[in-house]
Amino acid sequence: GGYGFIGSNLVHRLVREGARVRTVDALVDGHGGDPRNLAALDGVERLEARLGDPRVAGLVDGADVIFNVAGQVSHTASMRDPLTDLELNALDHARFLETVRRVNPAARIVHTSTRQVYGRAERLPADETVAAHPVDVNGVAKWAGEKLHMVYSQALGIRSTALRLTNTYGPRQRLTSDELGVLPVFVRKVLRGEPIDLFGDGSQRRDCLYVDDVVAALLSATADRAVGRYYNVGHHTDHSLAEIATTMVAVAGELGAGHGSEVRLVPWPDEHARVDIGSFTTDSSRIADELGWRAQVDLVDGVRATLAFYRDHPEYL
Amino acid sequence: GGYGFIGSNLVHRLVREGARVRTVDALVDGHGGDPRNLAALDGVERLEARLGDPRVAGLVDGADVIFNVAGQVSHTASMRDPLTDLELNALDHARFLETVRRVNPAARIVHTSTRQVYGRAERLPADETVAAHPVDVNGVAKWAGEKLHMVYSQALGIRSTALRLTNTYGPRQRLTSDELGVLPVFVRKVLRGEPIDLFGDGSQRRDCLYVDDVVAALLSATADRAVGRYYNVGHHTDHSLAEIATTMVAVAGELGAGHGSEVRLVPWPDEHARVDIGSFTTDSSRIADELGWRAQVDLVDGVRATLAFYRDHPEYL
Repeated sequence: GGYGFIGSNLVHRLVREGARVRTVDALVDGHGGDPRNLAALDGVERLEARLGDPRVAGLVDGADVIFNVAGQVSHTASMRDPLTDLELNALDHARFLETVRRVNPAARIVHTSTRQVYGRAERLPADETVAAHPVDVNGVAKWAGEKLHMVYSQALGIRSTALRLTNTYGPRQRLTSDELGVLPVFVRKVLRGEPIDLFGDGSQRRDCLYVDDVVAALLSATADRAVGRYYNVGHHTDHSLAEIATTMVAVAGELGAGHGSEVRLVPWPDEHARVDIGSFTTDSSRIADELGWRAQVDLVDGVRATLAFYRDHPEYL
Repeated sequence: GGYGFIGSNLVHRLVREGARVRTVDALVDGHGGDPRNLAALDGVERLEARLGDPRVAGLVDGADVIFNVAGQVSHTASMRDPLTDLELNALDHARFLETVRRVNPAARIVHTSTRQVYGRAERLPADETVAAHPVDVNGVAKWAGEKLHMVYSQALGIRSTALRLTNTYGPRQRLTSDELGVLPVFVRKVLRGEPIDLFGDGSQRRDCLYVDDVVAALLSATADRAVGRYYNVGHHTDHSLAEIATTMVAVAGELGAGHGSEVRLVPWPDEHARVDIGSFTTDSSRIADELGWRAQVDLVDGVRATLAFYRDHPEYL
């Protein structure tokens, strides 16, 4: 997932810190991968292939740390084509882990899972002991990919860690799809001056992470004590969707980005109501206690940095 | 899974009750499927195919109730060949659910999952709110197959229910493999007069179900109020592995079945110790409260019926 949203922000940080970086990305149509995300970087080896491709062995060989941030994230696509989602988020990860086992079993691996595995959580904020009960095929397949990393660690000694990421936003996210999460849709609409429609009363709560905080979590997860562990990665402050949307509108006005936007409350469409999870908030105390990670960027600061990036890079719109 | 252990016992019961029954089974080498299990039954339509096979549409069409008991159950095979386990226990079930959605979306479906999805449970006895954390690829893939049934129910209105079965024993189980669970191995060794080796001190506890109780649970799960629900199905009484083994030896002696056997305690092999789950006991109060199911057969009675069956059907040995 090196060309993707989280992957490319991680690559930028790693290059800045002087690491030698190799990437693989399938650049699947409609997914988050975008070659522009790494265009400015020299010296990064790039392979265009799926994670399950045999050529990935050449990248795995000799790597000290592997950040496995590959995956398909769309709820809608996973329900339209469940088999492809299972292939991309579960089977390709089994193929990848088999490659690691064969080629470089000592490599350190960090996998990105998602808070979507929880679905409608039995209690909030959800810690890692809450039972996963996803509402879409994407959540099922992502959970399977995560747990494969845990099984390979416990049973076979592979040195992997998994992070369940909350909703993330920031630079280098694909804004032009409606299927990659609610936050990039809000960003696009604010910058284009289009209305933001919220279902119901917009009171469902979310905690949102600026991508730099996710990159910091990925780096913290390479610690030896994280081997075989999985962690929630969320923000300690949550907001209603209405607050998130109005914050974006206000910050855009302050920055002179976009053309003015409005937030509208609309009735729930039935197909959305069936799979709505209501509020979700993350308890991230495990990663705080064990790895010392904690989100640093509050919503208003993250939104300011995000909108400023896209104002300066209108090609993403 | 109609030729398998649980499937064939269910088919016998259904035929006895006057149902019209169609079966599909892939008869995969080394799995539980055995044509002898249904040999004595007339009037059962049989298809030899995988659950994901397009010909399954012909069976699904017009069915009132579909018992989806197909799957691969071997821990060892799942670690030897993770991709095949994911194919059989997850992807084939997605293909099957797509078939149901297309051909017969009103059918009632009951899927058999496993208590192995819990792995080392965070608390015991484990109820359904305990987070799944499987120790092998089989547990990951079975969980994914189960959750696909739940997602199709919530998001698409498919009328499915899942049962997480504990260790099951009884007639028509394949005894000649070491990979299909600890109970059939015990039965085989007792009947052949071979020693039963227990790792460690044999104090790990399990609750065991006689297959007739599982068949009763499958039938109870066809109730309308079970749609979209998943249930633990275990016995309210648990035993140590040493008690289970010595019970089998004692009952065999009483029945004059087998040639005498002994129970031995041996040190843990390292590859088993890594994935050992310790004790596991099931809290089945959800299915008791909601569907009125409760195990009826205690260990000594179930073992007696089981050993008598195999004494009278030595071809299973």
